[in-house]
Amino acid sequence: MRCDRVWINARLATLDPEREGLGEVDRGVVAALDGRIAYAGPQAEAPAFDAAQTIDCEGRWITPGLIDPHTHLVFAGDRAHEFELRLAGASYEEIARAGGGIVSTMTATRAASKADLVATALPRLDALIAEGVTTVEIKSGYGLSLEAELKCLRAARALADHRRIDIRTTLLAAHAVPPEFRHDPDSYVDLVCSQMIPAVAAAGLADAVDVFCETIGFTRAQARKVFEAAHRHGLKIKIHAEQLSNQNGAALAAGLMALSADHLEHLDADGIETMAASGTVATLLPGAYYFTREHQCPPVEALRAAGVPMALATDCNPGTSPLTSPLLVMNMAATLFRMTVEECLAGVTREAARALGLSDRGVLRIGKVCDLALWDIERPAELVYRMGFNPLHARVWKGH
Amino acid sequence: MRCDRVWINARLATLDPEREGLGEVDRGVVAALDGRIAYAGPQAEAPAFDAAQTIDCEGRWITPGLIDPHTHLVFAGDRAHEFELRLAGASYEEIARAGGGIVSTMTATRAASKADLVATALPRLDALIAEGVTTVEIKSGYGLSLEAELKCLRAARALADHRRIDIRTTLLAAHAVPPEFRHDPDSYVDLVCSQMIPAVAAAGLADAVDVFCETIGFTRAQARKVFEAAHRHGLKIKIHAEQLSNQNGAALAAGLMALSADHLEHLDADGIETMAASGTVATLLPGAYYFTREHQCPPVEALRAAGVPMALATDCNPGTSPLTSPLLVMNMAATLFRMTVEECLAGVTREAARALGLSDRGVLRIGKVCDLALWDIERPAELVYRMGFNPLHARVWKGH
Ligand SMILES: [Zn+2]
Ligand SMILES: [Zn+2]
Repeated sequence: MRCDRVWINARLATLDPEREGLGEVDRGVVAALDGRIAYAGPQAEAPAFDAAQTIDCEGRWITPGLIDPHTHLVFAGDRAHEFELRLAGASYEEIARAGGGIVSTMTATRAASKADLVATALPRLDALIAEGVTTVEIKSGYGLSLEAELKCLRAARALADHRRIDIRTTLLAAHAVPPEFRHDPDSYVDLVCSQMIPAVAAAGLADAVDVFCETIGFTRAQARKVFEAAHRHGLKIKIHAEQLSNQNGAALAAGLMALSADHLEHLDADGIETMAASGTVATLLPGAYYFTREHQCPPVEALRAAGVPMALATDCNPGTSPLTSPLLVMNMAATLFRMTVEECLAGVTREAARALGLSDRGVLRIGKVCDLALWDIERPAELVYRMGFNPLHARVWKGH
Repeated sequence: MRCDRVWINARLATLDPEREGLGEVDRGVVAALDGRIAYAGPQAEAPAFDAAQTIDCEGRWITPGLIDPHTHLVFAGDRAHEFELRLAGASYEEIARAGGGIVSTMTATRAASKADLVATALPRLDALIAEGVTTVEIKSGYGLSLEAELKCLRAARALADHRRIDIRTTLLAAHAVPPEFRHDPDSYVDLVCSQMIPAVAAAGLADAVDVFCETIGFTRAQARKVFEAAHRHGLKIKIHAEQLSNQNGAALAAGLMALSADHLEHLDADGIETMAASGTVATLLPGAYYFTREHQCPPVEALRAAGVPMALATDCNPGTSPLTSPLLVMNMAATLFRMTVEECLAGVTREAARALGLSDRGVLRIGKVCDLALWDIERPAELVYRMGFNPLHARVWKGH
């Protein structure tokens, strides 16, 4: 079999659902041709390869390249000082006076150029890449005006010109009501539906539309309007739901065939049932749970029992999850949410792909995109068990 | 002023207690001569330097090199599988049958050669070094026999032949009762006191002696015997105290002038008072708190009010804290224990030095060892605020 590259003497965690557990292959081979996987499986069953390059993995493990399916990587400004003030006992009023909160991020993001946004996002993206991430979703949501939201999505897309990674973008104009609409949030929702979504769809700048459905965000009725506008323009939908309270947002979104509902600490049985029926992915964000000192865990056991797919993401954002480590996400999901090693690894690969509507990646299987992570470990559980340690040996994006 | 090296255009967090807060200097300079700090302070007040090398820091921040004052870095074997089994719902009995628990680490450590122990510890040490650690404490405690404890301490000391770092060693023979003494723990304590401590002291292999004082460890009476033996042989003392229950171990150790009492989740007012009186450092270990899903925090407010110095450490160990990131330790201390940014940074520098009885480091001040960490950050709070991100630009050990 002709191929561009072949990785031999590897142990594989294929995440192939047709295999057991992690889909492990003890003496495995992966071959790439034109950026796709031409073979992934046991060495013993492999064809003879005519490869331009052969890489001896010396027994290392190969997993699919990691996928981070929920980030707010593009923003300007700095919230570290706000964190410092809060620890020192400052009140919310004092923090607001010192320029804290999401409005500070919005103000800085509006003032930043697209080039500024790219430059400040790159170190965060590099941290993800250093842990084997090959596909990342990036949301807008700190611009909160037509022009600034477009700028953020353009900056997110432009990151792909600087690094070898796939970027998926999501319009999250319905992240917060901007100050100029404070007394008339419905008019802001109208702006999102009648101007932002059409403009973004026309420019091809987003793959999906997301809404922060919460008492401090948008109502179910407002979310429905946004989702209907998204559908009219051929965009997929996602939702920030049930993070702080149960607004039945996940059920709403699942009923509208959302790709994913994210956070879900306060999700109820009805929401779980609706998600299971629609195949909507539960994207869990343990970094935000940890950082905000939440005590209610998402209903992992019930999601598992109902067969709802569970993805994991960093939720990288300056306010509630300044986190850029998918390895730490897995550890938090296991430690705090009691997810199994298999669920954690599927959560940052196969199920993360599903949360983005991408059926072409996230597993090691013939025909899939050849995005790989090679690890210096003795068993996959180490990727979940250890904290603050990065055993990535190499990262392969589209076969290279 | 003649010097070997000078770092200019830096912002300094000196941690000098004679300055306010973090001891910040906005336009600062550090100069090194013969491995010591020849000057650290404002550029405006600096003498003219005649330096062999001048490094322009371009506005980066310099802190003292980080100090990790409590680790169990030297061990053999793997506990990731045990973690995986536990998440999958295995009982303690099943895990024990599968070879889990501290006995598995002891068995693997006894079977390992000194060279094996060095080789397996190096990646863990490298992870600490990558985040700016310049001094690390390493405990024995997985050998639990005279010969194996000596081997572990020798392996810990040998790490200094492989990396540019200071290693401090602690004999923790009283970590657990080994199986062969299961029915006669007092005889094991006698062995520790009458053979291990004298041998270690004679060989100069340890700087201090530590005891795990707990219902599942050693009693106060046993700890006292070990401490008295340590003192007879001129060794400092430390204690693992009040992690799972209040055994009044910290008060015992502080009464015997311990350098530090570590963990302290269940410390009471009497323990705090005794520690304050003796100047014993409270070394807090948020990684173990997080990983074991403990709910009781150490009494940080009361320690603060009593003026007990607080240090922070990774507690890197395979059973309860497989953690090799001092940056993550700071984030956990802030997020979970509500320590301030200043307390976190002092905890991994100035107070960590104090926990090891080292008065020659941990601050940027004339005459101290020139161990530095240079950071790509805009303010020190970023080191505490962010998760899974390493902005270390350079690390300087003894002036180089
Ligand atoms: Zn989010
Ligand atoms: Zn310990």
